[in-house]
Amino acid sequence: MTSRMPIKFEILAEDKVTRARAGLLHTPHGVIETPVFMPVGTGGTVKGMTQDELEALGVQILLGNTYHLYLRPGHELIREAGGLHRFMSWPRPILTDSGGFQVMSLKSLGRVTEDGVWFRSHLDGSSHFLSPERTVEIQLALGSDIMMCLDECVEYPASHETLQRAVSLTTRWAKRAKEKVSGVGCQVSGKDGTGSGSSDASGTEPDGNLRASPDTWHLTPDTFPALFGIVQGGTDEELRRQSAEALLDLDFEGYAVGGLAVGEPKSEMYDTAQFTAELLPRDRPRYLMGMGTPEDLLEGVARGIDMFDCVMPTRNARNACAFTSEGKVILKNARYARDDRPLDPSCTCAVCRRYSRRYLRHLFVAGEMLGAILATHHNLHFYLDTMRRIRQSLLFGEFAEFHCRVRARP
Amino acid sequence: MTSRMPIKFEILAEDKVTRARAGLLHTPHGVIETPVFMPVGTGGTVKGMTQDELEALGVQILLGNTYHLYLRPGHELIREAGGLHRFMSWPRPILTDSGGFQVMSLKSLGRVTEDGVWFRSHLDGSSHFLSPERTVEIQLALGSDIMMCLDECVEYPASHETLQRAVSLTTRWAKRAKEKVSGVGCQVSGKDGTGSGSSDASGTEPDGNLRASPDTWHLTPDTFPALFGIVQGGTDEELRRQSAEALLDLDFEGYAVGGLAVGEPKSEMYDTAQFTAELLPRDRPRYLMGMGTPEDLLEGVARGIDMFDCVMPTRNARNACAFTSEGKVILKNARYARDDRPLDPSCTCAVCRRYSRRYLRHLFVAGEMLGAILATHHNLHFYLDTMRRIRQSLLFGEFAEFHCRVRARP
Repeated sequence: MTSRMPIKFEILAEDKVTRARAGLLHTPHGVIETPVFMPVGTGGTVKGMTQDELEALGVQILLGNTYHLYLRPGHELIREAGGLHRFMSWPRPILTDSGGFQVMSLKSLGRVTEDGVWFRSHLDGSSHFLSPERTVEIQLALGSDIMMCLDECVEYPASHETLQRAVSLTTRWAKRAKEKVSGVGCQVSGKDGTGSGSSDASGTEPDGNLRASPDTWHLTPDTFPALFGIVQGGTDEELRRQSAEALLDLDFEGYAVGGLAVGEPKSEMYDTAQFTAELLPRDRPRYLMGMGTPEDLLEGVARGIDMFDCVMPTRNARNACAFTSEGKVILKNARYARDDRPLDPSCTCAVCRRYSRRYLRHLFVAGEMLGAILATHHNLHFYLDTMRRIRQSLLFGEFAEFHCRVRARP
Repeated sequence: MTSRMPIKFEILAEDKVTRARAGLLHTPHGVIETPVFMPVGTGGTVKGMTQDELEALGVQILLGNTYHLYLRPGHELIREAGGLHRFMSWPRPILTDSGGFQVMSLKSLGRVTEDGVWFRSHLDGSSHFLSPERTVEIQLALGSDIMMCLDECVEYPASHETLQRAVSLTTRWAKRAKEKVSGVGCQVSGKDGTGSGSSDASGTEPDGNLRASPDTWHLTPDTFPALFGIVQGGTDEELRRQSAEALLDLDFEGYAVGGLAVGEPKSEMYDTAQFTAELLPRDRPRYLMGMGTPEDLLEGVARGIDMFDCVMPTRNARNACAFTSEGKVILKNARYARDDRPLDPSCTCAVCRRYSRRYLRHLFVAGEMLGAILATHHNLHFYLDTMRRIRQSLLFGEFAEFHCRVRARP
């Protein structure tokens, strides 16, 4: 096992009433202010957004989907380009998932064995195998800052037996992923300065004018990616405890709460997030996977969560659904046909400063790309701004009041 | 007839060898540097581009399609919003076509009579009628800076009889359009400061924070739109002469060369552009409709054309076809799968400065919106930059050399 600490988590403020905290997460590609929302860049792009726009929006870390990138364009092609950061020209941190969730949520396609998961590509039906070691290899090729262990995520509701089996398997897989990383880590140190995850990217540059300094793209032994363990166990407190304890023994750089936001009632989701977060070490970042609405971010932070991701702001935007300070706005609705107000009158984003609901509705009704582009921009701004205000309230010691005020809204 | 001159055309430089000239076209919404390329914003949006991006690209004037805007969202809805500029939040000049080209190019749908064109909506099959007067009314509702007369555009090849008939009809329609505008113009003057084209947009603002000063959006008698006549006659020199002379008698603020780029050989297109341009007054802008490739812009300018529009840079971009200094690049091509060079190594656009062909190819293969967005940005930059270089060479008195140098390229 390696003693290097690829990321460093610094707590700047903790709320006195709730479990909420604000901090800084130092990663190979920069410092992230937590709590943080990570937009989902499934196939190496946040749908409809340019990287310039994402930077201007203040996106601090993107999530990349290993499943999609492995299938298309393929992780070797990305490794060859110098990793995902360089491939997509995104200089800030990237977290990649393990690919397991996609494989298992396309259920008819996946078959779970002790060794790993067999699945068929949704693109061409070809057969593939994902093991705990393999997903680490792929994520190293992608060169992400934070990698996730392969876990077994079960549906809701699930029997106690199914949940127990998933927890045990997830634990054994986590151990294998950790061992794989440690092995590679030793290799990296032995290789004297070249991370194997990016070893074939250290060649000459095909041209001089496109790329930033290679130092900002490549991983070195000092900037090796972190690996997070994923706690499973459904909404069962005892299973969550078992899962968390087993993972804590493996000493991960961060911990995720998996298997939530899969259909369970909100109250159970929040309760599970809270008691799972309490099982995790104070000095490690906590990541609640795949959640959720703007309200969920606030409730998650209050329960001790530091990191969030969700497709909702981007996917809903493409379906003409905008998040605003006054609730959801369905932009195709006929009531907006003659509405000259901005999408959200109290929003300061580039879309709300320039365009009317009348125009946005027209774009969606006419099937124009710009509708999705503008709604995505606004929704991401809304999520990121919500998180900025949450963080600000924590740093000012006013989170509990902020929490109450927002919850009291009609 | 009115004596107001809504636009003013100023010639700054004329080439000594060719017919090329550089100028300034003063319009109600600002000054346009000519020769100019106008991106096509069919349905109130240049597909895939935000208005911020268009401004940053240096777009000086957009083309709006009357046919599309009339059908969706409807010109009354746009008039009510304060005109197309305000509806789509585009403060710079807009030229609108008459709608006739779309109606007639969807042939099975259109029926031409002396009075105008009957057509069916491509959206819902509903029946509509477009007359010379009606298209002026619609364009006034849109509030464009430059309106186009309804004309009859015939296919290539066409019989002499068909062409002759089209020229005669186009002339009669032009006269009716001109009379319609003159009538409205008198009305405007009589109304003491409120253009009838935007009369119901002078009401109170629904909110204070979204809009720029109404002065920049509304037309006044001093900023009444211009009307351009369209010369028809196919590639027949005598018919072109007839058409031009008849239109000159009507004294339009500018003249377009219509009925080209409809399938005729390039050499005939260039020849027709040249002899038609020579028939037109030196002190009025000349607009070659619907053309063309970057080379066509150069050849058109050399033949005395000042204004161009074409869907090619935007439509081709969405089909993964990019214009570069080295020719067309088909971005889906497998040869770019591992190509880390920028799309066009000698281009300075935001796309070429940031992304590789490898990444762009991936986006198109994966069907990601960002592919179309980035390729559109690059192609528009390429067209606008081509025109800027042409204009620069004219101002420096070096157009003929520039023309030769570009034509000599392999």
